[in-house]
Amino acid sequence: MIESKYFQIAVDAAKKGQATWTNPQVGAVIVKNQQVLAVGYHHQFGQRHAEIDALAQLADISQAKRATMYVTLEPCSHYGKTPPCAKRLAEVGIARVVIGQSDPNPLVSGKGIAILRAHGIQVDLLGETLGLNVAYNYFYQHQRPLVTLKYAMSLDGKINGAKKERTVLTQTAAQQDTQRLRQHQQVILVGEHTLSIDNPRLTVRTGSMVFPPIRAALVRHIDDVDRQSHLFDQSAPTWFFSETAASTKLPANIQAFVNPHWTPKAIVQKLADEGIQSLLVEGGSHLQADFIAAELVDDLVIYVAPMLLGGSGLPAVIGQSLTEQVGFEKPTISMLGPDIRISTRRV
Amino acid sequence: MIESKYFQIAVDAAKKGQATWTNPQVGAVIVKNQQVLAVGYHHQFGQRHAEIDALAQLADISQAKRATMYVTLEPCSHYGKTPPCAKRLAEVGIARVVIGQSDPNPLVSGKGIAILRAHGIQVDLLGETLGLNVAYNYFYQHQRPLVTLKYAMSLDGKINGAKKERTVLTQTAAQQDTQRLRQHQQVILVGEHTLSIDNPRLTVRTGSMVFPPIRAALVRHIDDVDRQSHLFDQSAPTWFFSETAASTKLPANIQAFVNPHWTPKAIVQKLADEGIQSLLVEGGSHLQADFIAAELVDDLVIYVAPMLLGGSGLPAVIGQSLTEQVGFEKPTISMLGPDIRISTRRV
Repeated sequence: MIESKYFQIAVDAAKKGQATWTNPQVGAVIVKNQQVLAVGYHHQFGQRHAEIDALAQLADISQAKRATMYVTLEPCSHYGKTPPCAKRLAEVGIARVVIGQSDPNPLVSGKGIAILRAHGIQVDLLGETLGLNVAYNYFYQHQRPLVTLKYAMSLDGKINGAKKERTVLTQTAAQQDTQRLRQHQQVILVGEHTLSIDNPRLTVRTGSMVFPPIRAALVRHIDDVDRQSHLFDQSAPTWFFSETAASTKLPANIQAFVNPHWTPKAIVQKLADEGIQSLLVEGGSHLQADFIAAELVDDLVIYVAPMLLGGSGLPAVIGQSLTEQVGFEKPTISMLGPDIRISTRRV
Repeated sequence: MIESKYFQIAVDAAKKGQATWTNPQVGAVIVKNQQVLAVGYHHQFGQRHAEIDALAQLADISQAKRATMYVTLEPCSHYGKTPPCAKRLAEVGIARVVIGQSDPNPLVSGKGIAILRAHGIQVDLLGETLGLNVAYNYFYQHQRPLVTLKYAMSLDGKINGAKKERTVLTQTAAQQDTQRLRQHQQVILVGEHTLSIDNPRLTVRTGSMVFPPIRAALVRHIDDVDRQSHLFDQSAPTWFFSETAASTKLPANIQAFVNPHWTPKAIVQKLADEGIQSLLVEGGSHLQADFIAAELVDDLVIYVAPMLLGGSGLPAVIGQSLTEQVGFEKPTISMLGPDIRISTRRV
């Protein structure tokens, strides 16, 4: 019970790290004689790790001697942007380390624990994440990003009243929820039709981010994309998945990946190669059908607005057919103002 | 407070009347010296009214003298299948009548109250139904049945995996909920495609009903309907809305209404002419689009099953377009096993 209390403090600290980008969120707590001496977390990609941050909070480094550290993820074993944490914990005399989960990255998994044990430190592995780093873990288990499909639809399953116009379906609370959803994604992808009809910003408007999600669009020819569209602004990087290369120089924040036959599988593979752990697909109907048909939808977030758009409305998903229906877990439902939020994960 | 307690008893009694058909559900309570002496309700279409049923529960009819009656609906004033209740209450010496609502039928509204007052009975009108007789009231206010549209769809708004097959979407709890929904409808309508693909029974399987809902289907030619389909069985009456008349004699429980151009408006008008107060539209996609486009959907009940059917699945609503989107009230949502239930009413 007391153990889980300290671990919970470490988890809560981890969640404060809002700019860890492709690094995991990690929290660490130093405890001696049932007293919490320090709490630390990984603040930002490129900055010090949670264990080192916790040590820095101690009044005197000698306090670490014979102390226990609770840390949500296995301490690192390698010299990267920072020296290995496992070595540092041994140096300062930590006696015991309680670890939430071992690092899912197979190249480093277990090595941090081995270093700790080699230095005579007692290690207890809880095998518990309490919901931290879902995409990070998914990435290392499946060697590809976790794909979330998100759309807003009417009660009759339509996303637009007609094909060539944009229908605003949801109210403020659901729109804010979308912003929170985007905030935890590394790449947000739309199709060409959505790009031209909606001209979306695909940015997180709830505050400035150190690492905003990369905006991405699947297009036929990047040369045909209107350079005045929002994705060409400076607010975030943008990646185009294009069948043909750009004939003119692109702005510094714009990249084009060229493949004459982009498929969901090829896009996801390219993102995996780039180290991307999470992808949010935000429309339109055909791109959504393609990802569903490719069985590349892991999480679903759907907003249902209390209106009917009728028989000629644009269905949320249209085009590519399935080989078999895709089942999802029992959904979680809630009301966001007048709109319904449905979320679920693939079985 | 005490008043509302007695009224609630009357409302609860009213709801026991499960076979009132196109008659309203009505409950009545007789109170004297703050004691409930009798509770009655209208049991079945053609049988005695709630007021008379309550009087019959008294140990002695003389107990009615100087008593108060709480009754959910204005006592009747006309000689129909039973003599007028208002007169009978005066005869037995009821001193005061507390009425939930006046009768919405403009031909009789206020006449029962007038009779009571003419006999020196104190009348208090609460103007409250507590949810009783929604369709009955709607019928007299709008001169047409209340139309409920019900469908089950996937998370991507599809009702079938492919056009020519039937996909079972929902589990037991949602299917049972559909049975409860049907139980309170006077007519259940499907389109021709649903009839041929699903061969539905459109019956209430939760128990035998004195007045089961009338099953109805919109078809091109009744002669083309397979006589082996379930709608031709004896379990309930069936009405066909057909463009052409039947060339052979139909079974006793089958009727065909002929019109070369049936529209939702014409169907609803025909049902109104037949005194039908509630209609449940149960598919398919085109019939649903037609009713939505005609702005003839008052209530919506949607079951959402946790699966994706993909881009070639049959949308829940397809065909006829809207002149403008139809708005609904903030929905009520709940889980029925793994399925989501959404219900709402037109704004």
